[in-house]
Amino acid sequence: MNDIEIDEVATPTLSEPVLIEGLPGVGHVGKLAAEHLLEEFDGELVRRVHSTAFPPQVNVDGDGVGELTCAEFHAVETDGTDLLVLTGDHQAGTNEGHYRLTSAFLDVAEEFGATRAFALGGVPTGELIEEYTVLGAVTDATLIEELEEADVEFRPDEPAGGIVGVSGLILGLGGRRGFEAACLMGETSGYLVDPKSARAVLETLESLLDFEVDYASLEDRAEEMEEVIGKIREMQEGPSVPDDELRYIG
Amino acid sequence: MNDIEIDEVATPTLSEPVLIEGLPGVGHVGKLAAEHLLEEFDGELVRRVHSTAFPPQVNVDGDGVGELTCAEFHAVETDGTDLLVLTGDHQAGTNEGHYRLTSAFLDVAEEFGATRAFALGGVPTGELIEEYTVLGAVTDATLIEELEEADVEFRPDEPAGGIVGVSGLILGLGGRRGFEAACLMGETSGYLVDPKSARAVLETLESLLDFEVDYASLEDRAEEMEEVIGKIREMQEGPSVPDDELRYIG
Amino acid sequence: MNDIEIDEVATPTLSEPVLIEGLPGVGHVGKLAAEHLLEEFDGELVRRVHSTAFPPQVNVDGDGVGELTCAEFHAVETDGTDLLVLTGDHQAGTNEGHYRLTSAFLDVAEEFGATRAFALGGVPTGELIEEYTVLGAVTDATLIEELEEADVEFRPDEPAGGIVGVSGLILGLGGRRGFEAACLMGETSGYLVDPKSARAVLETLESLLDFEVDYASLEDRAEEMEEVIGKIREMQEGPSVPDDELRYIG
Amino acid sequence: MNDIEIDEVATPTLSEPVLIEGLPGVGHVGKLAAEHLLEEFDGELVRRVHSTAFPPQVNVDGDGVGELTCAEFHAVETDGTDLLVLTGDHQAGTNEGHYRLTSAFLDVAEEFGATRAFALGGVPTGELIEEYTVLGAVTDATLIEELEEADVEFRPDEPAGGIVGVSGLILGLGGRRGFEAACLMGETSGYLVDPKSARAVLETLESLLDFEVDYASLEDRAEEMEEVIGKIREMQEGPSVPDDELRYIG
Repeated sequence: MNDIEIDEVATPTLSEPVLIEGLPGVGHVGKLAAEHLLEEFDGELVRRVHSTAFPPQVNVDGDGVGELTCAEFHAVETDGTDLLVLTGDHQAGTNEGHYRLTSAFLDVAEEFGATRAFALGGVPTGELIEEYTVLGAVTDATLIEELEEADVEFRPDEPAGGIVGVSGLILGLGGRRGFEAACLMGETSGYLVDPKSARAVLETLESLLDFEVDYASLEDRAEEMEEVIGKIREMQEGPSVPDDELRYIG
Repeated sequence: MNDIEIDEVATPTLSEPVLIEGLPGVGHVGKLAAEHLLEEFDGELVRRVHSTAFPPQVNVDGDGVGELTCAEFHAVETDGTDLLVLTGDHQAGTNEGHYRLTSAFLDVAEEFGATRAFALGGVPTGELIEEYTVLGAVTDATLIEELEEADVEFRPDEPAGGIVGVSGLILGLGGRRGFEAACLMGETSGYLVDPKSARAVLETLESLLDFEVDYASLEDRAEEMEEVIGKIREMQEGPSVPDDELRYIG
Repeated sequence: MNDIEIDEVATPTLSEPVLIEGLPGVGHVGKLAAEHLLEEFDGELVRRVHSTAFPPQVNVDGDGVGELTCAEFHAVETDGTDLLVLTGDHQAGTNEGHYRLTSAFLDVAEEFGATRAFALGGVPTGELIEEYTVLGAVTDATLIEELEEADVEFRPDEPAGGIVGVSGLILGLGGRRGFEAACLMGETSGYLVDPKSARAVLETLESLLDFEVDYASLEDRAEEMEEVIGKIREMQEGPSVPDDELRYIG
Repeated sequence: MNDIEIDEVATPTLSEPVLIEGLPGVGHVGKLAAEHLLEEFDGELVRRVHSTAFPPQVNVDGDGVGELTCAEFHAVETDGTDLLVLTGDHQAGTNEGHYRLTSAFLDVAEEFGATRAFALGGVPTGELIEEYTVLGAVTDATLIEELEEADVEFRPDEPAGGIVGVSGLILGLGGRRGFEAACLMGETSGYLVDPKSARAVLETLESLLDFEVDYASLEDRAEEMEEVIGKIREMQEGPSVPDDELRYIG
């Protein structure tokens, strides 16, 4: 097997598609967001990317059929911009693997004519979030104004630890190839899968790429997580006695 | 030394042999099962596969002779189907090593004319097992019916963490080459070497490949393990006083 | 992407430049020293070195623009010797990466005509330092006398654990290529970023390479660290009661 | 830099030299033994082997000169057999590195005409040793008799975990190339550097290769270690009151 093997599944013609990357990461924000796009817009699988940098693993589907771990590109036609959505279950296992994989991903994006890219992800804050800000980072300062108009925040030197993994390299390697690329990072606690942060990132993308998406299913997952968060809060604060009961005792 | 070196020990002609893989893994289920086949059917060593992905190690035999760690293929003629049994003491040490090794293993299987493969292993349940179910996963949904008739269970999206290591890749890479492959995973606690789970997997294989095997020696090992399990149960439950004794005290 | 990619940013003519390496390490002594030179002498960026051995990471600048992690060479013209200063945010992630990167760094240095090199770093003592000694190690015993005249100390077989990372290899690989190279290692506790140790190393370099540098900004950082150290000392010794107060109680 | 670089320092003609390997390992038994041979017989450095599989490190000598980490071959002429002694400060950092390095070591040994090899090492027993048995493992059962006559013990399937690292591969890869090779493993606690175990291994070698060596310097190191062991025993047993004192109390 070669280091990277790309299966050509379909090659529809897309009109100036924008690469949207959502691989696993902090709060699974990018992955949730990318998968929501595929679900809502009925994405068409166009490429599977296998790599020896991925874990040696098959994932078993609902029928019991195992498929070799891979990253997938789906073509998505929205009411606005065409998208090329990159998702998957894994990042690479080594530094070198990250570089080789991201290079392969950018090759595929170029093959479909993409020149713009958004890497979606989360940025950990360490505490439960009330308001979901989206932080940005770009390949070129000229891209900032447009993003700020879509309420993306730019904070000097943040995130402090840099942007790591495929999202970082979409910017780092993409920029070196001439892509206009941005990372959109939803604030998230970092402790939990965060559908609300994924929604915040998607709303930014809607505004930037001129499409509309329904959030009902993402809202359902958010409510499930809210219950989890509620229980965590309860455990932190101890059992609370409602005011009424206190009065009754009195 | 090359990344992979294959020693050709013998090349008997086999009739549509089926690849049986049993490398170390959860509960050593696959390894026990594969080694039991070799023991019962007097397998003939046909290939040794050395690799820089294995630990840098020799194993010392009963005479004091060290042999470089390797995986071995044995040709096994049963009363039913011919088998090509793959065993060894190690999995690869890196993601990339797993892919390269499994590719080499499939090359050997193809060389002997195999087009079907069973990867044997265990699936951890986290608790001591009463009834030994065998879970399945396949390269193609058309294989499921036959396996279900042999009492293999298919549960949607299980095992949840996917199938990792050479077993997973026999499915993942094998499927991509046109092998009809299945993983047969015996349920096992995951804490102990489990000869009973290995027997459950072998009984499935007997039914599928139309051969018969004696379990006396595997039963001996199972009894040894039962003693260990008995002691664990005792420790968990504390010393128990039989009813009779209680009455006597009364 | 290749293992190593070097961006040629500028190629000024330098007169017998001396390579100065200051990558991250113990107490960040080397990095602080090298960055102080760039700040004080307005270094000109001449090369960026990217590598798959670096973490897959972009660092976000004050504007929100992400740049792929790299090591950088700056040309620095002092009042004395010309310098080629190598800095960066990361060391390589593997043994092999360290060797490949250092080879590439030495290639660049040779391209600019450098034949001498100083690898700057810290040597951990395990305790807070009062007097900042600079330890030396060289590629050739003939270099020792000149360094001792600049107050560099040579202690047999020290540092005991050898010199690890790019600094060590500047000596090890550099020596094999004919570079006259020395490691200058400022003693430092090893627990804290240490601007005072960086200053000690730079003062040695001033004396050796006949330039003068202002330490005001480094002194500011040193004072910040002194406050931290003061707090640590306080915590170790417990609250102290001034003599006056005691008398007052009496 | 290439993966492996071999410096040719000298190429004396040796008469059927025997490769003796003593790299770091359990109790540093092999390394102590090999270095003692070099010390006593004034070995001549013939090859330095550098590798990207070694740590990126220079070791600083008594003058302050740093030398790139390497393994070294010395030619040793004893009163009996000629030896080619392999020592060094490090093993490789990866599985693959171990294989590549040992292949290179065997290349050098072949270049000097060696066809026999002894890999020296320790085998951990987990407790302090009274009598220093030397265990053996060989490439070929025909070698056992000669070794047993020199008091080497062969125990079926021991050491249980196999022989790992360069020593193991001298046997594993050496055997595949036609070397007559043996591992001589001195029993040692595994907790301490063990000059007594090294002596036991050397005495075996003396008898096998018909040379004589003085042990005064190794005895000195052994005495230092005895003091350490004495202190450990004391700490384990608590303060002991001599009989006399007890009587006095009575």
